[in-house]
Amino acid sequence: MEQLKVLVETSSRHVHVTKEDLKTLFGDGAVLHNKRALSQPGQFLSEEKVRLEGPKRAIDNVSILGPERSATQAEVSLTDARTLGITAPVRESGNVAGSAPLRIVGPAGSIEISEGAIVAKRHIHITPEDAAKYGLSDKELVSVKVEGERSLTFDEVVVRVSEKFATAMHVDTDEANAAGLSGTVYGIVSK
Amino acid sequence: MEQLKVLVETSSRHVHVTKEDLKTLFGDGAVLHNKRALSQPGQFLSEEKVRLEGPKRAIDNVSILGPERSATQAEVSLTDARTLGITAPVRESGNVAGSAPLRIVGPAGSIEISEGAIVAKRHIHITPEDAAKYGLSDKELVSVKVEGERSLTFDEVVVRVSEKFATAMHVDTDEANAAGLSGTVYGIVSK
Repeated sequence: MEQLKVLVETSSRHVHVTKEDLKTLFGDGAVLHNKRALSQPGQFLSEEKVRLEGPKRAIDNVSILGPERSATQAEVSLTDARTLGITAPVRESGNVAGSAPLRIVGPAGSIEISEGAIVAKRHIHITPEDAAKYGLSDKELVSVKVEGERSLTFDEVVVRVSEKFATAMHVDTDEANAAGLSGTVYGIVSK
Repeated sequence: MEQLKVLVETSSRHVHVTKEDLKTLFGDGAVLHNKRALSQPGQFLSEEKVRLEGPKRAIDNVSILGPERSATQAEVSLTDARTLGITAPVRESGNVAGSAPLRIVGPAGSIEISEGAIVAKRHIHITPEDAAKYGLSDKELVSVKVEGERSLTFDEVVVRVSEKFATAMHVDTDEANAAGLSGTVYGIVSK
């Protein structure tokens, strides 16, 4: 089986919001304005930004990713979690049950989420075609090696297969910094 | 050869100062007060704290490690470097030629260092006895695997052998977060 060389992208801290929470944060009739398309089809960085407030400190200028979702969620790094003073678990996106509470502040109002602050578990988005080609299956855990002056091999990388995806790996800023990632980087996937 | 299981310690951002810079920052007759001994013999966390100012933002409450050194140096994470707005290279401690400039502010005064802000290259301090026992030599690069929900293998870990050391590995906070380190953690060293 051919070995997958996967594009490794860094996800900065960001928020996903419901339509209702968007209205609370940005006012009636608010919409997310597409600033830049992301690698995953249909997903975009919006122009809208919020403030995250934890019990310890706040972090300003946190981007909202669009489009709106069925649940509001904040994805932060463990460095951010320490800054905010919250205990955010390492989770796959969308798996927020029992995760950390957080206050999110927009220009028109604020919300308190009782759960939804997580640290994203590192993962590979992959198309069914690529998954078949490289012998990978949904929910499989793999390892990914990145080269460079901070070369390392990430274990516990979860594979997520969907025809809605483009093939790319996502790590957070702590992981990107630990690996010294900059520019366009590819990782070698192994089982 | 037996495989080394090494204690992995996390170094938070910190500063080393010369006697002269300590005087500028904290006033005539200032000394570093030992708050807590570190793993390396003679090294300690002091009670003295400074503010780091970069072109973008500042970071407060940064600890000084004692005792004083022959050159003033700030060791930050890549996350910190981004916050400060500086381009700090990944370097071994003490190798500061051409590294980033930074302003350091104390209660009695401030200094501008033209170089000395670095991101510490991950490393293993090891005694000559342990180095011989585990077949490791000074300046050798090894890999270290840590287990857990963010299990990973750090490559490019530099071995430093000295009779002044206690055997322990040091990573920065980005690396600790990427590996999900908490509590007492040991890593498995391989070549």
